[in-house]
Amino acid sequence: MAPTVYDVTTWPGATVSPYADIGLVINQIIADIKSQQTTKTTRPGAVIYIPPGHYTLQTTAKIDIGFLTIKGSGHGFMSEAIRDEANTTAWIETLPGSSHVQVANANQVGFLVDRTADPGTNGRLNSIVFQDFCIDGVSSSKPYLPGNGKTGIRVQYDTDAVRIEGMGFVYLANALVVRNADAFNITNNFIGECGNAIQMIGSSIVGKITNNYLISAWAGNSLFMENNENCVISGNSLLWGARMQFKNVHRAVITGNKFVSNFSGMIVHETACHEQLISGNHFRRISGDGGPARNDDLYGMVQVNGNDNSVTANTFSFEVPPAGIVPLGATPTVVLVKGGARNQLMTNKVVANVGVRHVLDSASTATKVLWSGTAAQLQDLTGGNMSFVATP
Amino acid sequence: MAPTVYDVTTWPGATVSPYADIGLVINQIIADIKSQQTTKTTRPGAVIYIPPGHYTLQTTAKIDIGFLTIKGSGHGFMSEAIRDEANTTAWIETLPGSSHVQVANANQVGFLVDRTADPGTNGRLNSIVFQDFCIDGVSSSKPYLPGNGKTGIRVQYDTDAVRIEGMGFVYLANALVVRNADAFNITNNFIGECGNAIQMIGSSIVGKITNNYLISAWAGNSLFMENNENCVISGNSLLWGARMQFKNVHRAVITGNKFVSNFSGMIVHETACHEQLISGNHFRRISGDGGPARNDDLYGMVQVNGNDNSVTANTFSFEVPPAGIVPLGATPTVVLVKGGARNQLMTNKVVANVGVRHVLDSASTATKVLWSGTAAQLQDLTGGNMSFVATP
Amino acid sequence: MAPTVYDVTTWPGATVSPYADIGLVINQIIADIKSQQTTKTTRPGAVIYIPPGHYTLQTTAKIDIGFLTIKGSGHGFMSEAIRDEANTTAWIETLPGSSHVQVANANQVGFLVDRTADPGTNGRLNSIVFQDFCIDGVSSSKPYLPGNGKTGIRVQYDTDAVRIEGMGFVYLANALVVRNADAFNITNNFIGECGNAIQMIGSSIVGKITNNYLISAWAGNSLFMENNENCVISGNSLLWGARMQFKNVHRAVITGNKFVSNFSGMIVHETACHEQLISGNHFRRISGDGGPARNDDLYGMVQVNGNDNSVTANTFSFEVPPAGIVPLGATPTVVLVKGGARNQLMTNKVVANVGVRHVLDSASTATKVLWSGTAAQLQDLTGGNMSFVATP
Repeated sequence: MAPTVYDVTTWPGATVSPYADIGLVINQIIADIKSQQTTKTTRPGAVIYIPPGHYTLQTTAKIDIGFLTIKGSGHGFMSEAIRDEANTTAWIETLPGSSHVQVANANQVGFLVDRTADPGTNGRLNSIVFQDFCIDGVSSSKPYLPGNGKTGIRVQYDTDAVRIEGMGFVYLANALVVRNADAFNITNNFIGECGNAIQMIGSSIVGKITNNYLISAWAGNSLFMENNENCVISGNSLLWGARMQFKNVHRAVITGNKFVSNFSGMIVHETACHEQLISGNHFRRISGDGGPARNDDLYGMVQVNGNDNSVTANTFSFEVPPAGIVPLGATPTVVLVKGGARNQLMTNKVVANVGVRHVLDSASTATKVLWSGTAAQLQDLTGGNMSFVATP
Repeated sequence: MAPTVYDVTTWPGATVSPYADIGLVINQIIADIKSQQTTKTTRPGAVIYIPPGHYTLQTTAKIDIGFLTIKGSGHGFMSEAIRDEANTTAWIETLPGSSHVQVANANQVGFLVDRTADPGTNGRLNSIVFQDFCIDGVSSSKPYLPGNGKTGIRVQYDTDAVRIEGMGFVYLANALVVRNADAFNITNNFIGECGNAIQMIGSSIVGKITNNYLISAWAGNSLFMENNENCVISGNSLLWGARMQFKNVHRAVITGNKFVSNFSGMIVHETACHEQLISGNHFRRISGDGGPARNDDLYGMVQVNGNDNSVTANTFSFEVPPAGIVPLGATPTVVLVKGGARNQLMTNKVVANVGVRHVLDSASTATKVLWSGTAAQLQDLTGGNMSFVATP
Repeated sequence: MAPTVYDVTTWPGATVSPYADIGLVINQIIADIKSQQTTKTTRPGAVIYIPPGHYTLQTTAKIDIGFLTIKGSGHGFMSEAIRDEANTTAWIETLPGSSHVQVANANQVGFLVDRTADPGTNGRLNSIVFQDFCIDGVSSSKPYLPGNGKTGIRVQYDTDAVRIEGMGFVYLANALVVRNADAFNITNNFIGECGNAIQMIGSSIVGKITNNYLISAWAGNSLFMENNENCVISGNSLLWGARMQFKNVHRAVITGNKFVSNFSGMIVHETACHEQLISGNHFRRISGDGGPARNDDLYGMVQVNGNDNSVTANTFSFEVPPAGIVPLGATPTVVLVKGGARNQLMTNKVVANVGVRHVLDSASTATKVLWSGTAAQLQDLTGGNMSFVATP
């Protein structure tokens, strides 16, 4: 094998078994890579392979070199929530598997991408890859926040082209936290039973979040993002507590996603967000376990704030027993245009078991609601500062 | 290598050459895994690697452990139909390749995921992965059904998070059959020249079918699905006999797919399906080889049944010589709303070489046809129980 | 290891170090494969693995066998443009990495898929895979054309089911050129700082281009395609010089893409293209470095030509300081319908910092502009041969 290919189970330099502390072994491997790659033009990084197995992570793995790929042979997801509610006496497997990394300690980060350096002076960390293994918080309970306080991966230092692909995350307070990323790629992951699934913090540049399962409960978010422009968010399946929470996120294209939630607020503009395109998504609101809800049913299945957002060609499907609507007797809100100018709702389909409506808050101006509901499905609090064409 | 990494060509425990019977070798490997992983908390599974090569499968590979990854180095698709119609005297390769598994026997299943157990009592099979190899039925002819009766992969036992990724399937009666799957992920596969491409049978929970080639003929389906809710079906390319057949499939989001077919019925609600979002797809109806067609041209390029489906922002392109239309002289149907209430056709584009129209059957009520065709392109058999706004 | 698995760093048959000339080593490996796979039914191909490392390619790697997978452990992208504009004295890494192949010579092709044969007589090349490595042109400068004249991958011979996945390309005049491809699959790649990103030349059949980063400058194209029908182009992020240039490309489905450009012409029908569906995309026009622009601001953010194209549910966002508009004082064009019949613009959202408009050229007929702009946002040069419904 090339000297740039490491297997955590066979690398002779480890001072501890990878099954006892895979984090320490990875750190020792990284130290070895650094000892071998010693100039700025001889640092191609390496690949660290994690074969199928149950590994405990006692020490946070700290990635401070670029071009490192950490890769397993399977995301190994098992629903620990279903397991913990079942009689498992006769179960054949009771742990997640494949390349299965168990974060041992409360409030610990499993994998920390960081560097004692300054990105402006010393350069960013480029093209780090996490692929096809499982990070497990071991024990937790809904809503997983604050829960065990564990984080799967935290990317703290500025990166370019970081990739998170085919990974599994389960029973973590925060599955994936990424700060100041440029051209990130988060695709085909299975994030289940975590407090927060994906958090893009700080200020990121463009990005793609595609084709993922994002399964979270009522306390956190499927996706939190702040200070981004031009991101693609498509083809994701957000389940049971679907929520994309945005602050200062402009010109995202949010298409072909499936949202299912027991709660209101499936897309939320926490602060003004401009020119998002929210098209071809299916929003399904049901009721069931969990709560208290963060928001009542006047909050909006989608809450838009900012200018020139377009909400088009979506289906909104609301099905909650009348006795479960909060406040009791209220008319639930489908899309709440909380503020901003020239937002546009066009050719959306609304289905509901009770009367529901779009609401244009008084702070909003010049919203256009076109072919997105009947006259009874619109509440205009702007005093007419809007345009409306009813679906016949 | 770690003890959880197997190579079918080098594993010393095999009693037969993998080239002679890869199924038996895989079964022996699985027996070995079971002999080594003996408690419910020490069963992370394994990865079985299939290097490039031509392998015969005489014995069905039976997967009855969780977290097993079976992986090759390439889906190795070759069009056997083109080959079988060509003079191959001077061809350089005449078989599919890469990690190429040939199912030997008529009516055989290549890979069977099953367990002699009860999912409720003994737990489901979690996170099984089939990745990047080829399953070949060896010989067949259009329409491949009943054909050789061979099945590539059959997942019979309840699973969670099963993954089928980067696989190739060719000349099989049934490429992939999956029963009772939760959160399945079928992405980036190449399924060509099979009777049925994907069949999701029994009752599945959510799911993703994305970015696949699904190439089938006139007898079977590109996708059959029953008893599912909240599935994402996007970015697929369905060719020559494109057909998604649904029974009791609700709230699917079907976006960005390419349908090409010589036949009518590209999406069919065999029984009532509610609240599907069919958006941003391109439906191309042509004529050519094959048949007899299952349905005539009054059947609908898309046949909707059930309540509150939304068909929006699609293009329907019909090009069949008048002499080929069945019944002769009929006006072909674009979207047939066979039944159900409040279905919505909005902002669709219709292109055709002959007069075509949407049809609202008498069993349908309160359908809305908005900006989806001219007045001449609508046949209303409901006696006016519908709304219509013509495209000017 | 099976005889079909090669590692460029350990294969004993190489006459040169792969670090000195990986192209020659790959050619020697291919010669070895051919010496071992000698009949038309015993040619499954092989996998050639490129471990992380910096490799120089002096000799073009020539792939003339089917079913070959060339695979690395990471696309290793680094922004060389940012590096070359920075003070890198204290940078820790200054080269791209992971499995990093540096094309050594000006005007060279890195990887050439070709065969001294005739596809009709000798068969096509099937299921060749390029996966997860980096091809680097080493040095260049904007706009990278003609630049160093280097090409990353050129597929010259007819192929079926070629796959380009997870690759990185940087500082190449032409990243990827593919001729006469059937059912190609280009997904999840990172193509940055290249003159042309993807060029599909000759005549291709169907295809998928999905989930890629395509980052190019003002001289070339993000995607050039000619003579294709039924392609899926979705979920891509096209940056800074976003441009899809089409000649005779019909019935493509172009959905969920993000376009960002400093220039006009983000989708261009160079010759007539029919029945494309352009839906759910976000077009962002800004200004910044680069140029001269190929086209002025009357050219259209999107320029449609041909019949029955549908442009629906997109957002067009234009933000250029008035002093930067060319010709000065002109009203920039959003969608230009240059010619053709029955094109349809429906339910698009237009945002702009200045007055902008759609333009229907005199050669166009029967265009429908519905709910896609105000009356002031339409210039009709057809003398009324069109339909218009204004957004209120």
